[in-house]
Amino acid sequence: MNTAPVLIAGEWRQAAESGRFQPRNPSTTEAIDRTYPKSSWRDCEAALDAATNAATTLRTASAEDRARFLEYYADAIEASADELCALAHEETGLPLTPRLLDVELPRTTGQLRAAAKAAREGSWAQATLDTAANIRSVRGPIGPVVIFGPNNFPLAFNGLAGGDFAAAIAAGNPVIAKAHTAHPGTCQKLASLALLSLDQAGLPGATVQMLYAISREDGYKLVRDARLSAGAFTGSRPAGLALKQAADQVGTPFYAELSSINPVVMLPGALAERGAALAEEFASSCLMGSGQFCTNPGLVIVPANDDGELFIARSGELFDGANPGTLLSAGTEQGLQNAITQLREAGATLVTNNRAPDEGRFCLPNTLLCVSGSGFLKDPTAFQTEAFGNAALIVVSESTQQTAELLRQLEGNLTGCIYSSSTDVDDEAYDSLAPILRDKVGRLLNDKMPTGVAVSPAMNHGGPFPASGHPGFTAVGVPASLIRFSKLDCYDNVRAHRLPPLLQDENPLKAWRLVDGNWTKNPVN
Amino acid sequence: MNTAPVLIAGEWRQAAESGRFQPRNPSTTEAIDRTYPKSSWRDCEAALDAATNAATTLRTASAEDRARFLEYYADAIEASADELCALAHEETGLPLTPRLLDVELPRTTGQLRAAAKAAREGSWAQATLDTAANIRSVRGPIGPVVIFGPNNFPLAFNGLAGGDFAAAIAAGNPVIAKAHTAHPGTCQKLASLALLSLDQAGLPGATVQMLYAISREDGYKLVRDARLSAGAFTGSRPAGLALKQAADQVGTPFYAELSSINPVVMLPGALAERGAALAEEFASSCLMGSGQFCTNPGLVIVPANDDGELFIARSGELFDGANPGTLLSAGTEQGLQNAITQLREAGATLVTNNRAPDEGRFCLPNTLLCVSGSGFLKDPTAFQTEAFGNAALIVVSESTQQTAELLRQLEGNLTGCIYSSSTDVDDEAYDSLAPILRDKVGRLLNDKMPTGVAVSPAMNHGGPFPASGHPGFTAVGVPASLIRFSKLDCYDNVRAHRLPPLLQDENPLKAWRLVDGNWTKNPVN
Repeated sequence: MNTAPVLIAGEWRQAAESGRFQPRNPSTTEAIDRTYPKSSWRDCEAALDAATNAATTLRTASAEDRARFLEYYADAIEASADELCALAHEETGLPLTPRLLDVELPRTTGQLRAAAKAAREGSWAQATLDTAANIRSVRGPIGPVVIFGPNNFPLAFNGLAGGDFAAAIAAGNPVIAKAHTAHPGTCQKLASLALLSLDQAGLPGATVQMLYAISREDGYKLVRDARLSAGAFTGSRPAGLALKQAADQVGTPFYAELSSINPVVMLPGALAERGAALAEEFASSCLMGSGQFCTNPGLVIVPANDDGELFIARSGELFDGANPGTLLSAGTEQGLQNAITQLREAGATLVTNNRAPDEGRFCLPNTLLCVSGSGFLKDPTAFQTEAFGNAALIVVSESTQQTAELLRQLEGNLTGCIYSSSTDVDDEAYDSLAPILRDKVGRLLNDKMPTGVAVSPAMNHGGPFPASGHPGFTAVGVPASLIRFSKLDCYDNVRAHRLPPLLQDENPLKAWRLVDGNWTKNPVN
Repeated sequence: MNTAPVLIAGEWRQAAESGRFQPRNPSTTEAIDRTYPKSSWRDCEAALDAATNAATTLRTASAEDRARFLEYYADAIEASADELCALAHEETGLPLTPRLLDVELPRTTGQLRAAAKAAREGSWAQATLDTAANIRSVRGPIGPVVIFGPNNFPLAFNGLAGGDFAAAIAAGNPVIAKAHTAHPGTCQKLASLALLSLDQAGLPGATVQMLYAISREDGYKLVRDARLSAGAFTGSRPAGLALKQAADQVGTPFYAELSSINPVVMLPGALAERGAALAEEFASSCLMGSGQFCTNPGLVIVPANDDGELFIARSGELFDGANPGTLLSAGTEQGLQNAITQLREAGATLVTNNRAPDEGRFCLPNTLLCVSGSGFLKDPTAFQTEAFGNAALIVVSESTQQTAELLRQLEGNLTGCIYSSSTDVDDEAYDSLAPILRDKVGRLLNDKMPTGVAVSPAMNHGGPFPASGHPGFTAVGVPASLIRFSKLDCYDNVRAHRLPPLLQDENPLKAWRLVDGNWTKNPVN
């Protein structure tokens, strides 16, 4: 039996196989009756060559062509919404509705269209003109990009359709996507829609390529290859770190989103004022989607007082009362189980994991753990183990001073939240804690759980290591996410007719440009 | 005898010594009668702790304080210009005038003042407001930065006063500078002026710290330390790469400027039109400052025709006719000699290195080498050996197609130039070559040597690896160079009175901000 074909150089072809795999249905744990190939280096090689050629064509293609491709593709995804979401549900166990059909798919097409708009308009590229010196610079394409998508967003973070994909294409680069082996059917369907849309837009077929699986060694070889210009990875810390280090060796930018426990500080005044409501908010955020979000609130700091005790008790009841969601894969289940074991071995006690889940699917009880502030400080590394899924750790802090010390011990995170009283009773504590947390996170929140990641120009979905590989970039939000896949192209004394449109005196795209120190859409006189 | 003191935590103190060294005067090769300490890890440890504290203070200090410090410091450097330049001349052999007094010192103070202006005004931080979602982001300080300056600009790229220093401070970070061992006296004088200026501005003394030398292992340990947030390095490729890889291991941004041979393409029409003038331009650019610039034109591609031959011959005469400049150190001399040997062993022939230099100083004959295009393509790596100093390699290309192949084989470079006819006879060749060169360089020039690096907002002094460690950033040019030393700080639903000034509705600094998709200096209504 043939395996599913891979997409290389604009063609669906049989892989140069080095192995095969079948995905599993997380809702039944059964194997799905489709077989996919693991590619050998020969496929990587072919994809790299084709991407190199596509990059050359894309450099001279117009922004309008890229924009149109992204829009055709968004249309095609919408037209195939039912089929795509059925595949994604089968392969990930995520609910069809509201999650896949009503939230994730619209988010995906919304991101593609936002990226299209940014590409067409051009302001994202921050054209900068020094007219006196005749030096002009603009963000240009970086070259072929490889994207390793995560398991938890089969559409919105998919290497073939998600935020990294949209950003890399909008910035003018071809993408080689490594499909996630947990949802290869979803990836295949997306790739087929992408290929049709490329044809419609008149862009090279090799602008989007896809392999289902490659060996670890070929992954390192791929990101070290001179034909590759950048990479993006969202997933587990060990896998991402190893890829990042391979890319680092040859100076190739590699944006890795590796791990985050998203600390939440409940200040005393907040719990005194609205503790029960905050427990609801926390439990609902932590258990939504079985907690399988990069921004899941995994660490909550509460004061050692009656309000803190009540918060823990109420959260425990809510964890007990909710039906555990299905986990994405056997690997996710095993990883979560291991993390809970590690946290318990470090000294965390169980508040609850009583609710036995139904049999016959990947899942674990909703799990809430607890440790004292001084306990945490004895082994801060162990207590920062990321429990990816429906679990969280509560830390009971003796004082604002201890909370400050807890925050100082944190690794980099995507987000950090502080809940405070609606009056000013928490302001002193806030003022002493917020600067410490600020240094540790990409996004600082007040009175709001971190789970929602709005696609906003002001969003930062990134943060200090290991939340991401560089604290200056965001993976979500247009136009900022495009910057990652660009290089700074300076033109010094280059003749007028040889300048790219964004740097021409006339400003034909009417983009925002920084001209002699002022942002303007006007042409240069 | 005591060694010179190091500057740690706002105090001049005796180093925790692990060794000693003396600089040499390149104009005489004699040791200079001053002794400096090599610090042990104890000094690094103390500097890291002090920098951590300074970073906390700087986070809440106003932009105005940082700006004032940079301006006081620029004033102090000007007031000590004669002493500083005398020291720098003694330690580097660079001419007092025009180089040090008339060019490099004014450039240094100009950069400090430009950075001060950027810090005060705030537009560099690209505040981005999504008022509907109440999500706001801005570039905030990244934390303690270590700077390893190069040997070739004792003032303008000095870790204690140069572009990286100005950018890191303006962005709100403390700096630990590793002085260059070739000019420790210059560094000491600068550090003393910086300390006085910090006091004048009311900033913590530990905002600027300095060690003269540390072991290689302590260097790696320093950049891997959790208290350090970023690093910058300009210098030799092996040393920079090793430091970068240590930083990469822990996800710390490390901006390294490693090597560049700055290809120059002379198209046939340009040489036919003005070959003799171009030979003058090339020789003058390549021999200026003994060729000791990151942007020295080290590789020139000429056509295999009479005009190409004439260009080579004329350039050779000019190299012969010029008195070789003094090189910065014994190491520079040795490195240049090694590179010339490597190029010759690879198959390059000598056009000239006839002019024997005067005795009793660090120097080598002006050296021009030559290789055929097909010769180059047999071993592109060897022929891209950087000969840092008064030397260059000319490649004789058979055709535009061969030139394209030569360019495709190039590593990343800071700059790339194409000279073409003032008529349109070279346009076809230009159009086929420029896109290839564009992908390889940070700055693309027309009809101009790359040596001058204007301090312009549109400058890119950076490029694809190994020119730099990330092709999206520039080391020269305000405000863009500040971005390297910032993280992206997002504020999600943060209460109005807790926002930093740049994100407040009122826009108290009147900075340019991207508000709901439009750049404006207006307040939010």
